[in-house]
Amino acid sequence: MLYKTKQRPEREMIFGTRAVIEAIRAGKNIEKILIRRDMNNALSRELYASFGQEVIPVQKVPAEKLDRLTTKNHQGVVAFTSPVTYQHITDIVPMLYEQGRVPFVVVLDNITDVRNFGAIARTCECAGVDAIVIGTVGSAAVNADAIKTSTGALMKIPVCREQNLAKTVTFLANSGLKPIAVTEKTDTNYTQPSYVEPVVLVFGAEDEGISAEVLRLCSERAAIPVFGNIQSLNVSVAAGILMYEVVRQRKK
Amino acid sequence: MLYKTKQRPEREMIFGTRAVIEAIRAGKNIEKILIRRDMNNALSRELYASFGQEVIPVQKVPAEKLDRLTTKNHQGVVAFTSPVTYQHITDIVPMLYEQGRVPFVVVLDNITDVRNFGAIARTCECAGVDAIVIGTVGSAAVNADAIKTSTGALMKIPVCREQNLAKTVTFLANSGLKPIAVTEKTDTNYTQPSYVEPVVLVFGAEDEGISAEVLRLCSERAAIPVFGNIQSLNVSVAAGILMYEVVRQRKK
Repeated sequence: MLYKTKQRPEREMIFGTRAVIEAIRAGKNIEKILIRRDMNNALSRELYASFGQEVIPVQKVPAEKLDRLTTKNHQGVVAFTSPVTYQHITDIVPMLYEQGRVPFVVVLDNITDVRNFGAIARTCECAGVDAIVIGTVGSAAVNADAIKTSTGALMKIPVCREQNLAKTVTFLANSGLKPIAVTEKTDTNYTQPSYVEPVVLVFGAEDEGISAEVLRLCSERAAIPVFGNIQSLNVSVAAGILMYEVVRQRKK
Repeated sequence: MLYKTKQRPEREMIFGTRAVIEAIRAGKNIEKILIRRDMNNALSRELYASFGQEVIPVQKVPAEKLDRLTTKNHQGVVAFTSPVTYQHITDIVPMLYEQGRVPFVVVLDNITDVRNFGAIARTCECAGVDAIVIGTVGSAAVNADAIKTSTGALMKIPVCREQNLAKTVTFLANSGLKPIAVTEKTDTNYTQPSYVEPVVLVFGAEDEGISAEVLRLCSERAAIPVFGNIQSLNVSVAAGILMYEVVRQRKK
């Protein structure tokens, strides 16, 4: 059964194992699935099998959490649909080269603030970014708030949700894109690297920055200098400055 | 009498005409004064006289609005103190020249969104801006939310609240600062103007842009190019891109 949730009109809630399996098979975009912690039966195994190649975040929760979401018979499984159709970066990159574009990809590593995420997506669309990559775990929800802050950009620009960002960055590097980490952990001013060739800009969490594993895979690092008494820029402002440095260099 | 308001611990509420007059005379920073619409007596005239050279926003409201703010005897006058000490741009500019600095001022014309305002202030502090100028009317409240979003920048960078932004821009131009309007209403890419001399960047409201009068006073205009399907950048992101173009050009 399929019900609109009250708080987020664009997000639908599907409950019941069979209903969720059918939604996945029908190609519905699933944001995440909540499953009763102790559930392990033939039907739950069928649910996991139904994912196929799709990467869907699954969260194991106590039965009470599901009971709070709905008074109907959820059978231990509740799914939320996503208003965004996720794409695969492995499909997009070859297509960009075929179209004669110079790929420009943005990877967001653990950006959890929904408004920052939405604002970055808006700038990506304005700066002509080809795709946004986020992780399956530890990313801001691509929900109605994010879409609103993005002023709809999230419905236009391809969003790729990838299970392992380190693998994704490796794939992008092997595909000829230069991964540049935007981080304070360098003396290189962000205007020094060249962005005219295919690039991936990697931005990290507001607090902890880019994860060590992903940072290690970036061939270059770029820092925005800060003066005054505040230690850092807001991540969506920093992302805007970097994306428009790419635009500036490519225009010349 | 002076009470801490519940929602915004940094903002105090003062009520009673005499108490407000005394607070102004004592040099308290007043964010705004709410005054009963029909109030016109010797005491209210003394209140206005107490402003002296200070520019304090006054809002005429129905008595019921004041009654909702406090159950105490407000006598038709309620004032809110400001956590920020406002400064005068006419004091700051000569000081900057004396210090041998190349002035870099940001004027915000009708930026009403508190979070955008706070984010811009944060970037101003990071980019080494010397002062932020806002209008007395039609600006975001410099309240606890703004300060939080600015991560404290609003307590560090000089904020000037001016009654007439057109006069302020004229003063700045006469003082040798070049006023540059950041607006979509031009074909000039923002990287074309020179920002190495003293400059004022003028940013306008999220919806209507810079007011016609202020726009006319700007000697140059600068636009950030946008691609894709979204028509404009978020104003705090646009401000970040422009401020760091100033930093980039001055560093060279």
